[in-house]
Amino acid sequence: MIEEISVRYLDTSAEKKPVDPILIEGLPGIGQVGKLVAEYMIHMLGAEKIGEIHSIYFPPQVILEENGMARLARNELYCYRSLGKDLVFLVGDHQSTSNEGHYLLADQYCSVAEELKVKRIYTLGGFGVGHLVNDPRVLGAVNRVELLPELKAAGVTFNREEPGGGIIGAAGLMLGLAAQRGIDAVCLMGETSGYLVDPMSAANVLTILSKLIDVPVDPTKLNDRASEMEKFIEKFVEGNRLQKDEELSYIG
Amino acid sequence: MIEEISVRYLDTSAEKKPVDPILIEGLPGIGQVGKLVAEYMIHMLGAEKIGEIHSIYFPPQVILEENGMARLARNELYCYRSLGKDLVFLVGDHQSTSNEGHYLLADQYCSVAEELKVKRIYTLGGFGVGHLVNDPRVLGAVNRVELLPELKAAGVTFNREEPGGGIIGAAGLMLGLAAQRGIDAVCLMGETSGYLVDPMSAANVLTILSKLIDVPVDPTKLNDRASEMEKFIEKFVEGNRLQKDEELSYIG
Amino acid sequence: MIEEISVRYLDTSAEKKPVDPILIEGLPGIGQVGKLVAEYMIHMLGAEKIGEIHSIYFPPQVILEENGMARLARNELYCYRSLGKDLVFLVGDHQSTSNEGHYLLADQYCSVAEELKVKRIYTLGGFGVGHLVNDPRVLGAVNRVELLPELKAAGVTFNREEPGGGIIGAAGLMLGLAAQRGIDAVCLMGETSGYLVDPMSAANVLTILSKLIDVPVDPTKLNDRASEMEKFIEKFVEGNRLQKDEELSYIG
Amino acid sequence: MIEEISVRYLDTSAEKKPVDPILIEGLPGIGQVGKLVAEYMIHMLGAEKIGEIHSIYFPPQVILEENGMARLARNELYCYRSLGKDLVFLVGDHQSTSNEGHYLLADQYCSVAEELKVKRIYTLGGFGVGHLVNDPRVLGAVNRVELLPELKAAGVTFNREEPGGGIIGAAGLMLGLAAQRGIDAVCLMGETSGYLVDPMSAANVLTILSKLIDVPVDPTKLNDRASEMEKFIEKFVEGNRLQKDEELSYIG
Repeated sequence: MIEEISVRYLDTSAEKKPVDPILIEGLPGIGQVGKLVAEYMIHMLGAEKIGEIHSIYFPPQVILEENGMARLARNELYCYRSLGKDLVFLVGDHQSTSNEGHYLLADQYCSVAEELKVKRIYTLGGFGVGHLVNDPRVLGAVNRVELLPELKAAGVTFNREEPGGGIIGAAGLMLGLAAQRGIDAVCLMGETSGYLVDPMSAANVLTILSKLIDVPVDPTKLNDRASEMEKFIEKFVEGNRLQKDEELSYIG
Repeated sequence: MIEEISVRYLDTSAEKKPVDPILIEGLPGIGQVGKLVAEYMIHMLGAEKIGEIHSIYFPPQVILEENGMARLARNELYCYRSLGKDLVFLVGDHQSTSNEGHYLLADQYCSVAEELKVKRIYTLGGFGVGHLVNDPRVLGAVNRVELLPELKAAGVTFNREEPGGGIIGAAGLMLGLAAQRGIDAVCLMGETSGYLVDPMSAANVLTILSKLIDVPVDPTKLNDRASEMEKFIEKFVEGNRLQKDEELSYIG
Repeated sequence: MIEEISVRYLDTSAEKKPVDPILIEGLPGIGQVGKLVAEYMIHMLGAEKIGEIHSIYFPPQVILEENGMARLARNELYCYRSLGKDLVFLVGDHQSTSNEGHYLLADQYCSVAEELKVKRIYTLGGFGVGHLVNDPRVLGAVNRVELLPELKAAGVTFNREEPGGGIIGAAGLMLGLAAQRGIDAVCLMGETSGYLVDPMSAANVLTILSKLIDVPVDPTKLNDRASEMEKFIEKFVEGNRLQKDEELSYIG
Repeated sequence: MIEEISVRYLDTSAEKKPVDPILIEGLPGIGQVGKLVAEYMIHMLGAEKIGEIHSIYFPPQVILEENGMARLARNELYCYRSLGKDLVFLVGDHQSTSNEGHYLLADQYCSVAEELKVKRIYTLGGFGVGHLVNDPRVLGAVNRVELLPELKAAGVTFNREEPGGGIIGAAGLMLGLAAQRGIDAVCLMGETSGYLVDPMSAANVLTILSKLIDVPVDPTKLNDRASEMEKFIEKFVEGNRLQKDEELSYIG
């Protein structure tokens, strides 16, 4: 019988076991801000994969990879080791498709954090404002009030008015559920329109996170993606136009 | 593994343990009538928090508080002690997001009532009529027919035609489920348009409830909230307008 | 902890225990045809209530009765005793709100049938054709091919084309699930527009069912309901118009 | 208590037990391509039924057969025996109605494959492109990279761009879940508009599958179905028109 949620560590992960690490969650969400930051850090720091999470709460589909391989939708754990500054990353294809699944997955992520003796969790996300933003701020939330001064000093904005209703999904729930386990957790949200993948917002989140964890990561290439994206959008629009022309000629 | 529903009592709650209390449920619902009444009573009577309820059936999000703190969506239990007239309040951010969850939560609320040796439950709600009402009535329902005379004497209207299909959510289910446990339960519904938070309707419910439980609570400040709310709506409308202007100037 | 589905027999039901009965299911459905037939038979035969079924798969609400009493949404079991022709009726407020719940409830109904040593199940429903029908036929389905001749002889129409995709809900599932338990089951569907409660279609189903079970039930009063309904619809339309006028005068 | 998923083998199936078979999945999906191929092969090869799968995750309804019999929605297992080339087919009425059910069913199908010592799984589906296709290609996906050369040699197209987001339902999930059990699995998808049942696309999938498993099946009659379908569509359109006329004359 399939498990509702399964966490598997790679055989090689024992050697790479992190010591008192910080956990950085960057699952898909508004503007893909969290995903961009976490995946970029994994790439730039050369973090290595240590585990995989599968769940019946993910969408019921396989993902096609470039080489023709299909694999289950999944979340992944990556590890970066650096004396006294070990990092574990939680990234992946999807979050839960059901409300209850969101709770069960977020609780499992906190179990992983507890097993790995994580000393602090950073969850990353976007904060959609519904219009384009010139200089996106980084908004924050914490699960213990004593964490605030350090974050304000690092340039995080705290404004109760803004994330009005709350923070949805893993980025939010992990704060609440980690508190029940006595693990400190901070959510960093990059201000974003919410309409597009937003590397500019991600770069600002990265800059502050990098300062907070004292692990330098050059945001330049993330900024570069912003112009790449503009080109992609142009190509996409043009592609749609060409396809329409083709269909018309087919029918005609 | 996370519990589907968890009830936790605060450490200090032992001293405040109520004696043969009345349970007043005021969770979110139509016109927020029940929520307004119960939270206003907690405030005016200085009731103290004795417990928290969390559940995977609540929306999968954390609530942001003014100080930058994020906390899980929750329900809360408050206690007011007064010789022979102890009250327990059940209030909170949300009800269930699923049909089955509504039953499981309402049953858990009745378990709490049984544990606390509650002698009667009052569930509070709004009865939406779809148009503005000048002098909102208080409609009622009971789970034991012998309760009717006392309620009619207090000014509660019983009219089968009106809450046509039934009473949805905790305010209704607790009547049915409490009956199975032998606990008397009454639902008081303030007539309301259903479009807006309705403090006027809440004030009428409060007046009758206060009489029924013989605990005086001055409804004046609840009436005051009506004018506050009008101001809030004005501000909200104006804020939207300003934001639109800003966006226009940004694009232009 | 609340049961997902609970079946409770009344204390008095032991004396009324049916002997080798026929089970007649008439839960809500298309045109309320099945419900009308079963509830009319209960009324005309003076069948007595022997049990209640509650479930978290029913809508999360209580039903308001004329006397101000609220009760859980439920299904009911009624029993009619007549030497060699005992009947058990399954009627109620609602069917399941979820797909899985439909299976779990229908299976529970079949468990009840097995416990009561039911020798045959008749499930009743409407077959919606999307337009008004002058002389509604009674369509049928069986769970054992040997049952066909008897039904055809009684005037039931079998036409594969017609209930195209299948029969949804308890009326259908009980046929499939009863077969697995070795209990014969027949579905009788009254042709109906599907837009309105349809007593004319119900009268035709009743006439055939009455013949099949050899228990005479006069359909006259069911036919009378057809004209009552026309009056009700007229009143309803007029009522809506009056309410609109009232609202206009309120605003004006 | 009903099982969430039940697999029953027919009594006669012991004699027909396949030896190291290949499993071919053709459940309903886009353009019914997989269903058409698998059911056509069962018909042409004279494969015999060996088992049935029922589940509460299928739609809550019974299917009406031509003879007035109603049966539960189900999946079926068929077996074709031929020395060294035994085949097992998985076909049926429906896939899951819920996301979680898709995972639980696909995992159960893989359990069946493991029990029957299946050496390879072929899942069949359609790949909807949103416009009519003149010469539909057969696209592929694998769950082990070493399977690619054989498939490319047989004419399967691998193009990462095309099944963009992934493969939904059993055809996809079985690849991912079979990999966890060490069973090779291949998905063959016929390019199709996605709007209609597509026998032309099915014929192309059949041709390639037949080559891969080295079991010749003449696709001619599948091609014939293309013209039958055109006639069916004409009749269907005409039927609707006639019905409309009838309704008009009824009202008029």
